[in-house]
Amino acid sequence: MIEIIGPLAHDAVTSAGKPLSLQRQLIERLQQAILGGRLPAGAWLPSSRLLAAELGVSRNTVVIAYDHLVAEGYVLADRKGTRVTSLSSPAAHADAQQEAAASEVAYAARLEPFAAIRPQREGASLLMPGTPALDRFPLAAWRRSLERAMEHALPHALGYGPAAGEPALRDAIAAHLRIARGVRCDGSQVVITEGAQESLNLCVRLLTNPGDIAWVEEPGYRGAKASFNLGDLKTVPMRVDPEGIAVPPDAWRVNPPKLIYTSPAHQYPTGAVLSVARRLELIAQARRAGAWLIEDDYDGEFRHTGEPIASMQGLVADAPVLYVGSFSKTMFPALRIGFVVLPRSMAAHTRVALQEMLRGGHRLDQLALAHFIEAGEFGRHLGRMRRLYRERQQALREALGVHFAPAQILGGHCGMHLTLRLPRHIADRALVERAEAQRLAPRALSSFALQPSDEDNGLVIGYGNTPAEQIAAAVSQLADMARELAAQRKSKR
Amino acid sequence: MIEIIGPLAHDAVTSAGKPLSLQRQLIERLQQAILGGRLPAGAWLPSSRLLAAELGVSRNTVVIAYDHLVAEGYVLADRKGTRVTSLSSPAAHADAQQEAAASEVAYAARLEPFAAIRPQREGASLLMPGTPALDRFPLAAWRRSLERAMEHALPHALGYGPAAGEPALRDAIAAHLRIARGVRCDGSQVVITEGAQESLNLCVRLLTNPGDIAWVEEPGYRGAKASFNLGDLKTVPMRVDPEGIAVPPDAWRVNPPKLIYTSPAHQYPTGAVLSVARRLELIAQARRAGAWLIEDDYDGEFRHTGEPIASMQGLVADAPVLYVGSFSKTMFPALRIGFVVLPRSMAAHTRVALQEMLRGGHRLDQLALAHFIEAGEFGRHLGRMRRLYRERQQALREALGVHFAPAQILGGHCGMHLTLRLPRHIADRALVERAEAQRLAPRALSSFALQPSDEDNGLVIGYGNTPAEQIAAAVSQLADMARELAAQRKSKR
Repeated sequence: MIEIIGPLAHDAVTSAGKPLSLQRQLIERLQQAILGGRLPAGAWLPSSRLLAAELGVSRNTVVIAYDHLVAEGYVLADRKGTRVTSLSSPAAHADAQQEAAASEVAYAARLEPFAAIRPQREGASLLMPGTPALDRFPLAAWRRSLERAMEHALPHALGYGPAAGEPALRDAIAAHLRIARGVRCDGSQVVITEGAQESLNLCVRLLTNPGDIAWVEEPGYRGAKASFNLGDLKTVPMRVDPEGIAVPPDAWRVNPPKLIYTSPAHQYPTGAVLSVARRLELIAQARRAGAWLIEDDYDGEFRHTGEPIASMQGLVADAPVLYVGSFSKTMFPALRIGFVVLPRSMAAHTRVALQEMLRGGHRLDQLALAHFIEAGEFGRHLGRMRRLYRERQQALREALGVHFAPAQILGGHCGMHLTLRLPRHIADRALVERAEAQRLAPRALSSFALQPSDEDNGLVIGYGNTPAEQIAAAVSQLADMARELAAQRKSKR
Repeated sequence: MIEIIGPLAHDAVTSAGKPLSLQRQLIERLQQAILGGRLPAGAWLPSSRLLAAELGVSRNTVVIAYDHLVAEGYVLADRKGTRVTSLSSPAAHADAQQEAAASEVAYAARLEPFAAIRPQREGASLLMPGTPALDRFPLAAWRRSLERAMEHALPHALGYGPAAGEPALRDAIAAHLRIARGVRCDGSQVVITEGAQESLNLCVRLLTNPGDIAWVEEPGYRGAKASFNLGDLKTVPMRVDPEGIAVPPDAWRVNPPKLIYTSPAHQYPTGAVLSVARRLELIAQARRAGAWLIEDDYDGEFRHTGEPIASMQGLVADAPVLYVGSFSKTMFPALRIGFVVLPRSMAAHTRVALQEMLRGGHRLDQLALAHFIEAGEFGRHLGRMRRLYRERQQALREALGVHFAPAQILGGHCGMHLTLRLPRHIADRALVERAEAQRLAPRALSSFALQPSDEDNGLVIGYGNTPAEQIAAAVSQLADMARELAAQRKSKR
């Protein structure tokens, strides 16, 4: 055998520098000899006594190795001895492998829309929409809440928790939403998710079948389109005007929806407020059609002017609305805590299904967040951020007025971004590519539309993570790039 | 107006006891009057000066309230004054509401299989499969790793991280899998997920279309079936025998699979080891068929006898295998960190799609886990748990031998459970229901099968979370209940 498997080394080590036992070596050598065909099907292995003597190892080492090979099915052992089982020939595998390498892998059809997306350049971050001022997050208070959760809830909070999330957090969210957003709910309707995207995925899974129609705002939040695409839905764009999503009268008949995505408080990215007439109309029509509205209240918390605009969910009793929110912007993105508020009857009906679909977990984070809300830290943090963002928005407005006049600026009564319309001769995607090379990360307005029109040429400019004193310089840089693009275009004509 | 909207209160408070401003009160009163039809469409509101005088508030309060109502679309303002917009009649909404209440909500068809599942009774936990010994988790060492991650990575780790997870953790997992499980990979192939279930969901999303066929082990892991169901796949069961999943020769033609779920190291729940002949055959056939194997190595880390059984992924180069694992059992369930190791070409091809599908996050947990692994804490913890679980398994084997003799016990070379076959006259589900009432939580073997046969009558008994000294008493209780069930059945004949 030694000419087939080679001598064993008493001082062999693994690639990580750990000692490699003789029995481990012997098992691997025999496996390789069998897989490589050097010990063919039906070949008898020597008795453990003989092989031990030949290799200079203890008989027990060989016995253990043979037992292992039996367990994995490399050899068969009976009264007559130990022999190699018959395996498909490794040569056949090599052939099949080459075949496979030559043919294309068939990925899911739903990946196709993603193929058109240009990956964002890493590193660019100034003026990026959707990113809060992380350097102003009250870390010390948050760590106190975490510390407290650990002291109170360990070790039992290491285990699986309720699938829908920690009851303390669900109650705290419900109480907050009732007061701050006029949402009609209690904790039993709140399902904790990984964030807005997972909330949308959950709505899709609960309420749709592949091929169903879903309406999205045009231009609108890309995450909604990604989520509907992942659920194999047919996505139909509905134009947005200054009163929010504008549904043509025949749309309910021509493209009967199962789900309708809306961002009523501050449409993303145009900033329109969905008018109360349209809210009532959407609710009434959805009820008639058996459709469900998704209300994504993604930045309703950061209201900058006047009184907050109440949620659509709370406008009438038992509205067919799934209210979706997240703490990615009000706390921090890496927290990955979002939620869906289900209608009451849906919460009861889907309890068992949710137990099979969700695993709960991240319990300390959830308990810490519940405490952070209840202790008033969350409210104080929101207040500080509102003031900060208001100041940053003001700086951005002024800079856009100086460098892009006469600029049409959309939105801004909530949130952390302004949308700037660009004249047709400055293509937004080209401008964004240039900006990224200078570490500036506004987004192209046209990238939020499925069928971009001339109106959808512009920049979505975040101010959440950009200090007021850096904004003027960054906008001036953007304006220089825009002028270069315009000049290039002119010289090409 | 005061007869329509009532007088305002200077000392009003919200339900949370916070002061309710006059302008907030005025906005809400006017909204209610408009929604309730008491201020009909087209009605003119008094000038701000007049209304301020009538209500005894400042004119500015009324101006702000009117502006807010304009923004939400309740009223229109022009040079001639402010008048109520036309909204659909609230009465119409009430009608539609009753219609909707009378009709059934159409949930997704994929929820139907979940409806048959009996929710587990809360509180029962002894002998529950899949739950580790949380009271033995090295909390102090884990908190040091967390503390270290916070010191090094805050505040920047509050932001979105890479979609596929922290590079440090992906590298640490790849290094561990290469050595401990013989997986051929580097960190670029590792995608961090929320756990085994999310790993399976990811495989489904990347590789299948609705209606595709997926094979599952019978009996087998329920999470795989849940995941394939969520992906609208057609699930075909393949019987498991002592050599693991046994595929009839014509199955590749009759039910051509796109995905094949396997647990080769320790089949769940029967404990079979997939033989090397079948591994090679599955790999070769999957290549020919353009199918993908999912290798769920769910408890390969807790090997109790001899050398670990190497992964199927590493058996041959470029095997069509997605290797799936999780830290729910090796660390703790609430951590919610799992992973998929993608084939190299698939990792490159799906990079942009993964960025649209995943959000990263939970970065401190991921960085802490990377440190915990690199510092050797993870390896030491695994070693301690192996010894503990071996001792607990021994106690369970002995107790089953005493109370259920002659018992057929399956599995046990890895993991945290044993499977006990029951005679036909003791129905496993009835026994499990009784056990739960006594706070014991074994699972019914038949509940792991899509089409349970007589062979699938038994108990899946966990020992991970049950101290050795409590096992004999718990098993004796189970045996008493089994005898009662058998006696009841006899008396009914």
